[in-house]
Amino acid sequence: MASRRLLVEVLSIGDELLIGQTVNTNAAWMGRLLENEGWRVNRCVVVSDDEEAILEALADAESRAELVLLTGGLGPTRDDITKHVLCRHFKTRLVRHSAIEERIVAWFQRRGREVLQVNRDQALLPEACTPLDNALGTASGMWFERDGGVTVSMPGVPYEMEHIMESGVLPAMRQRLTSTGRRPQRVHRSLLTMGAGESQLAARIEDLETFWETQGIKLAYLPSPGSVRMRLTAEGAAVAQLDEAHAQILRRIAEWVVSEDGLRVEEELAHLWKSQGWTLAVGESCTGGGLGALIVASPGASAYFLGGVQSYSNAAKTEMLGVKPELIARHGAVSAEVARAMAEGVRQRFGADYAIAITGIAGPEGGTEDKPVGTVHMACAGPSGTQSAAHSFGRDRSRNIAMSIRAACQLALETGRIASKTSKAAAGVADSL
Amino acid sequence: MASRRLLVEVLSIGDELLIGQTVNTNAAWMGRLLENEGWRVNRCVVVSDDEEAILEALADAESRAELVLLTGGLGPTRDDITKHVLCRHFKTRLVRHSAIEERIVAWFQRRGREVLQVNRDQALLPEACTPLDNALGTASGMWFERDGGVTVSMPGVPYEMEHIMESGVLPAMRQRLTSTGRRPQRVHRSLLTMGAGESQLAARIEDLETFWETQGIKLAYLPSPGSVRMRLTAEGAAVAQLDEAHAQILRRIAEWVVSEDGLRVEEELAHLWKSQGWTLAVGESCTGGGLGALIVASPGASAYFLGGVQSYSNAAKTEMLGVKPELIARHGAVSAEVARAMAEGVRQRFGADYAIAITGIAGPEGGTEDKPVGTVHMACAGPSGTQSAAHSFGRDRSRNIAMSIRAACQLALETGRIASKTSKAAAGVADSL
Repeated sequence: MASRRLLVEVLSIGDELLIGQTVNTNAAWMGRLLENEGWRVNRCVVVSDDEEAILEALADAESRAELVLLTGGLGPTRDDITKHVLCRHFKTRLVRHSAIEERIVAWFQRRGREVLQVNRDQALLPEACTPLDNALGTASGMWFERDGGVTVSMPGVPYEMEHIMESGVLPAMRQRLTSTGRRPQRVHRSLLTMGAGESQLAARIEDLETFWETQGIKLAYLPSPGSVRMRLTAEGAAVAQLDEAHAQILRRIAEWVVSEDGLRVEEELAHLWKSQGWTLAVGESCTGGGLGALIVASPGASAYFLGGVQSYSNAAKTEMLGVKPELIARHGAVSAEVARAMAEGVRQRFGADYAIAITGIAGPEGGTEDKPVGTVHMACAGPSGTQSAAHSFGRDRSRNIAMSIRAACQLALETGRIASKTSKAAAGVADSL
Repeated sequence: MASRRLLVEVLSIGDELLIGQTVNTNAAWMGRLLENEGWRVNRCVVVSDDEEAILEALADAESRAELVLLTGGLGPTRDDITKHVLCRHFKTRLVRHSAIEERIVAWFQRRGREVLQVNRDQALLPEACTPLDNALGTASGMWFERDGGVTVSMPGVPYEMEHIMESGVLPAMRQRLTSTGRRPQRVHRSLLTMGAGESQLAARIEDLETFWETQGIKLAYLPSPGSVRMRLTAEGAAVAQLDEAHAQILRRIAEWVVSEDGLRVEEELAHLWKSQGWTLAVGESCTGGGLGALIVASPGASAYFLGGVQSYSNAAKTEMLGVKPELIARHGAVSAEVARAMAEGVRQRFGADYAIAITGIAGPEGGTEDKPVGTVHMACAGPSGTQSAAHSFGRDRSRNIAMSIRAACQLALETGRIASKTSKAAAGVADSL
C-alpha cells in the first residue's frame, strides 16, 4: 500500500495540446524530475478547456494517485477556466490575496506595462488552497490537500511551471515523504548505443536480460533516430544489484556503447573536449547551423566551442572555407572529399584543435540516382589528420538533419577518444622511460 | 449524436514518455492532422507498459470515442506487450502473415543485417485485425473494428507512425465519413502576434470577443516565448462567419500582428524572401547556429538562404566577419554596434541582399550589472541600410536563445516588409509617370 501511494498523475489542460499547436514538453519535464525524486508517474492525461472533462479527469486521477499535478488554464483571458473548476471540485470560492495582487502590480510596473483588472484578478484564488509563489509570472500555483492526497495546479507556461515545481512543490513533497518515513524506491540506469538496432542488441544480451528480470531488474529499449537508449529499472531490494547488471550488459555490447551513463552524444563530446582542453569549430551545409546550436544549448560551451561556418551554398564553401571549386565539380558538394576539405578549411580558419563538417542531401528535393535523399558525408579534422564517414539515412528531411548532427558528434567523439587514449598511452611510455 | 461520434482519443504507451526520456511529439502531430480532417481530439492519455493499465485506458477511450489511436509497444523486444494486450482486449489470437514476414526479411536483407526470430515474429498479428502496411519499418499497423468504433495500433517511432497514419488510417477514415454522409464541422483560423501580452490583446478586443462568442466563435490565446498565437474556432453554422470575425480582430490589433494566417515568423520570412527573389545570410553568436537551423528546417531554403557564420568567440567575429577589435573593446561584444558590424560583415562576405546578426548573453554565466543575462542585440543589414533592435529577455538560457532567434526573424521580416512596400510604391509612381 505504501508503495502504491507514491503514484503521481499529470493532468494537462488545453485545446492547444490536443490539436497539436503545442507539444506537451511539460509532462516530459515533470516526468524526469519526479522519477529522480523516486515518484512513479502512473499516467499523463491531456483534456480540453472544458469544465466537465476537467472535473472527470481530475476525480479519476485523484482516485489512483497520491499526487496530482495540473498544468494550464490559469491565464488572465476568458478561455482560462481552471480556477473556477477547482472551486467547484473542492467546494470552495475565490478570495482575493492582497499580497499577491501587490506583487502582480509590481511585476507590470517593472516592465513599464499597464495593469488591467484581469491581471489584478489573478490574485483571486480558491479559499481552500495554499498559494505557491510564482516569481516568473502572474499566475500563482495552488496546493490543495484532501483525503490524504495532494492536488497542485500550476500555469502551463513551461518556465513558470518549472519554477513553481522546484521552489514550491518539490520541497513540500519531500517534507511529506520524510514526515511519513517513506523513501524513493525506484532507480534507473541507462546506456546509450549507436550503430545497432534494438533487436540486434536484444539478441546479444538475451540470457542476461532473462536472468536480471528474475532478479527484479527490468530492461527497456528506447530507439530514437540513430541511437538506442537502454534503460535498466530496479525496484525495492533489486536496487542493490543494479550496478552489477549495468556492468554486465555494458561489457557484452561495448562496441556500440556511446555513453555508459546514458548521456546524450553531445554531452559526452562536451565533457571530453572540456577535460582535454581542446577547442572545436564546425562547418555545416545541410544542417544549416543545427550542430552549433546543439553544442551551445548547454551552458559553458564557450569553454571549447569557437564557432563555425554555415556553408549552405557552394559559393560559401569556396569563399568562406577555401573548398576548391574543382573539387566540388569533380566529386559533387555532397562527397567525402568536400566534407574533408570543409573540415580542414574550418579548422584552419578558426585555429581550432578539431573541426567537424557535414554535407548532405536532406531532401525532399536534390536527390539523384547515385546520391539519393538521405546521403550525408561528414568529417572530423584534428591534429593527427582527418576522419570521415558516410551515411545513407532516409527520406524525411527533419530526421536526416537530426541524424546527421548526432552522427557527426559520434564521429568527433570517436576521433577524440582515440586521441585521448593515444596521448595517455604516450604519456605512460614517457613516464616509464 | 452524429457530432459526438466524431471524437478521437489518443493512447500512447510507454514508460519512456512517463519518465520524460521521450517527449510525446506523436500526440501533437496526430492532433494537428486530425483537426485538419475535422475530427475533434477529445483526450490524450499516456500509460506505462503495463497490461492492466493499457486495458483499462483502452476500454475507457473506446467508451467515449469513435476512433482510438494507440502508439507504442510494437517493437521486437520483450518490453513490447501491446500485441498481446490487444489479443486479450479483442478476444483473438496471433496468426502469422507470410507476406508480411517476407517483407520483413527483405527489409533486413536490403540493409545487410541478419534477420532474427524476433524480427520474423513481427509478422505475428492479431487475427481480428486488418494489417496496415509500414513501408518504413518492421512493425505493421493494426486496424480493429467493434461496436461501430475503430481502434488502430501503430508503432511509436514517429516517422513510421506518420507514414501509417497518412497512407493507411486517414484514407480509410475518410471513406468511413463519406459512406456515412458525415463531414468535418469544426474550423480554426489563427493570427500570430509579437510584442503584446495576452491580457493586453484581450483588453483591446474585449467587446469583439464577447460578441463573437455569442455567435458561436471561440477565441483562445496561446502564448509562447515572445509571441501569442490567437486561435478562432467555429463549429457548425458559425463557420460561415469565421472570416468576418478574423478580419475584425485583425484590424483592431494590426500593430502586433506578424502573421495574419497564424504562420510562424520564419514561415512569413521565407515566403517574403522567396517572393521578392532576395538572398539571406546570418551571423550568429549566442544562438550558435539556431537561426540558420530554423531557416533550413523548411524544404526549399536554398532558394534564398546562402549560409552564415557562427561567430561564437570574439576572434571569430573579427577574423570571419571583419568586426574591428576596437569596436568590441569599446562597446563590448554584446552591443548594437557589434550586432550592426556583424550583419554588415556577413552581408558583404556572402554577397547577400540581406543579413541578420545576433549577439547576446544567453546565460546562466556572463551577465554584468549593465548587461544582465538575457541582454541581446540584433541587426538586419540590407540595401537601404541597417536596422537594429535590443531586447532584455530573462534568466533561462534555452528560452533566451529561442526568443533571440524569433525576434531576429521579426526584425528581418519588418525590414523586408517596409522594403517591399517601398519598392511597390516606387513601381506605382513609375507606372503613373
